[in-house]
Amino acid sequence: MNRWPLPDPMAAALAQAEAAAHAGEVPVGAVVVKDGQIIASAHNAPRTLRDPTAHAEMLAIRRAAEALGDERLDGCELWVTLEPCAMCAGAITHARIARLYYGASDPKGGAVEQGARVFEQKQCLHRPEVYSGMGEAEAAHLLRAFFHARRG
Amino acid sequence: MNRWPLPDPMAAALAQAEAAAHAGEVPVGAVVVKDGQIIASAHNAPRTLRDPTAHAEMLAIRRAAEALGDERLDGCELWVTLEPCAMCAGAITHARIARLYYGASDPKGGAVEQGARVFEQKQCLHRPEVYSGMGEAEAAHLLRAFFHARRG
Repeated sequence: MNRWPLPDPMAAALAQAEAAAHAGEVPVGAVVVKDGQIIASAHNAPRTLRDPTAHAEMLAIRRAAEALGDERLDGCELWVTLEPCAMCAGAITHARIARLYYGASDPKGGAVEQGARVFEQKQCLHRPEVYSGMGEAEAAHLLRAFFHARRG
Repeated sequence: MNRWPLPDPMAAALAQAEAAAHAGEVPVGAVVVKDGQIIASAHNAPRTLRDPTAHAEMLAIRRAAEALGDERLDGCELWVTLEPCAMCAGAITHARIARLYYGASDPKGGAVEQGARVFEQKQCLHRPEVYSGMGEAEAAHLLRAFFHARRG
């Protein structure tokens, strides 16, 4: 039996998550897509960069803004392996991301479908369309393997 | 009649907010204090830097982490002229800021005492002590003057 192939941007985000794990960072990866092309990729890197804001989504958004020369990412999609936290959900709003695709839910730190529910607040000035669950098993496996290895 | 003088870090944050206005950015300023010394200062600069994440708090936190060579700002205080949004509140948590002082409340975008109430969620792994209202009148005046001039 073959698994339905993941869309390219989620496969790319998962590859970034794997790269994070190899770098000793919690394995989360993200890409920004515009007009069907990946214009920025990043993985979680707060330890490597000594930057508490260096989540995959933040780095991908900042790189995409730099690539476009614009602080608004109108019409862009963000694909990320894990449900964004409050910081990253806020950045998605500020960047005017049109569509958010994420893999696994994050009961511990998520702020989209639980907790702060950033996009559901009346203070949220821009809400992306949100699609979740694609690549969920792969994303969760990477996280479990990473934390299992660290405990081992 | 003399006004009670503001603590130095809030006066420095307000000076940063004024600098933001002169640069054509929404006037919000922030400083990070460790052991009584300001170790990082920043103002809101998303347009100038073409970076949707470049709020005053984010830049101040990133500069402080760079100055300390550590992604955790243990024992540090963040002083900011306006109530942080969800993105910045999340960053404050990730950075392990010990104490947050902010001037004016922000009914439109705040995520501390309203909206997402980031620090009150069970997903919030680190809660700073929060003090608000110091420099409120000054911070609100800068914002009102900025938006009034832009409409004029």
